[in-house]
Amino acid sequence: MKEQERPLILVTNDDGITAPGIRKLIEIMNTLGDVVVVAPDSPQSGMGHAVTINSTLYCSPLTIDDGMQIEYSCSGTPADCVKLAVNEILNRKPDLCVSGINHGSNSSINVIYSGTMSAAVEAGIEGIPAIGFSLLDYNWEADFSQAEAHIKRIVQTVLEEGLPSDVVLNVNIPKLKKEKIKGIKVCRQAKAYWKEEFDKRTNPQGRNYYWLTGKFVNEDKGHDTDEWALANDYISVVPVQFDLTAHHAIQRLNTWNLND
Amino acid sequence: MKEQERPLILVTNDDGITAPGIRKLIEIMNTLGDVVVVAPDSPQSGMGHAVTINSTLYCSPLTIDDGMQIEYSCSGTPADCVKLAVNEILNRKPDLCVSGINHGSNSSINVIYSGTMSAAVEAGIEGIPAIGFSLLDYNWEADFSQAEAHIKRIVQTVLEEGLPSDVVLNVNIPKLKKEKIKGIKVCRQAKAYWKEEFDKRTNPQGRNYYWLTGKFVNEDKGHDTDEWALANDYISVVPVQFDLTAHHAIQRLNTWNLND
Repeated sequence: MKEQERPLILVTNDDGITAPGIRKLIEIMNTLGDVVVVAPDSPQSGMGHAVTINSTLYCSPLTIDDGMQIEYSCSGTPADCVKLAVNEILNRKPDLCVSGINHGSNSSINVIYSGTMSAAVEAGIEGIPAIGFSLLDYNWEADFSQAEAHIKRIVQTVLEEGLPSDVVLNVNIPKLKKEKIKGIKVCRQAKAYWKEEFDKRTNPQGRNYYWLTGKFVNEDKGHDTDEWALANDYISVVPVQFDLTAHHAIQRLNTWNLND
Repeated sequence: MKEQERPLILVTNDDGITAPGIRKLIEIMNTLGDVVVVAPDSPQSGMGHAVTINSTLYCSPLTIDDGMQIEYSCSGTPADCVKLAVNEILNRKPDLCVSGINHGSNSSINVIYSGTMSAAVEAGIEGIPAIGFSLLDYNWEADFSQAEAHIKRIVQTVLEEGLPSDVVLNVNIPKLKKEKIKGIKVCRQAKAYWKEEFDKRTNPQGRNYYWLTGKFVNEDKGHDTDEWALANDYISVVPVQFDLTAHHAIQRLNTWNLND
């Protein structure tokens, strides 16, 4: 990238275009490049890598604040937003896609349910360096400013160094004051899971229904995991791939007698 | 597993509980074990690994045919169905979860958008051996019987051999007569992608909207890929992992100067 050229940065999220987390991310990105926002018009949490194939998509320009960015609000999922941005809205491939800042953690196995990360993965599939940012605070009034310098540093590094091919970054930020954040750690995804607990209720018509709730269980004691980093006051950076092939398992499966 | 005991098999899908693909899969599984079906009450294609966290879930027993299986229809996504089955419906952990048979391909990068595979992955996360089956025929009247013997063989092998830990199988079946299917091949996921083409239209109120369409582009020439196997009349079996860490990238990222 030439020194005079400002990078083109696509910003999206899964909490919706008016969420404080994306507003902060836009503000930070405006200091680093030319920003185009294409984000969902309503919250899309837990959408995983959903795409809209059986209904229509709306996408309209709008102005939310007096920042330099150009913005579009879209009726689809985070993955839809990236597809629309790249194929319909932008004149050229962006130099970077950032997603978030999510209101809540996307560490460990949560990466798989995360709309924030699905946007980053979708960009990665399209050959765009991409980063998802999440703050470990579900509060709508969470303080997204504490990690500002760290976010800037990660984005600048990716703009300068690029990313390994077919890899995007999953960045999680502990809920801490700036001076308490010990630094940034490159990690692997902890082997953890959700122990679901369905809250069973009866509606006014007498029909049973459920709310999905659960408890996050981490039995992974490794010090090289995102969960360890976050519990020890570090920002975690996990390189995430979208080739889901378990290459290590192919040899064992080939010993099976599947064909007579 | 003791010889006298029939395995407990959980069946789900993303095309909805009445889809011909799942009806055929139930019929096949009834010959191999005790079958419980927990499947979406309506089509959920393209839902990726979405879960329902902001609305209520309904789940009710029903009878669709005179098979031996027990069935529940659920208002949620494929991943929701597996969570509900394991935590609310079944008395013990199933020995196997099968998802499908999907009406249409889930090969290559499609695994990431696939509701069929998200159910299998969700089961895998819960420690249940799991397989997603897809037929390369989007037709509602597709002929699911041609691969019956192969499906049975794969399921029996997994019941006998188990699966490597944290691995589920993605099985795709070419649209061919039984005698034309050359056999079963263990493969890696081809490096392919969708080249989106948005079909832009105007609604009766004058507002623009889009339909997501696209062309599948496979530039991966490897003979060890699922796309190659399918194009050459084989059933493809790809081992799929849900630890998304790009372990190979960690070393390079550690050379970055992220902390002063």
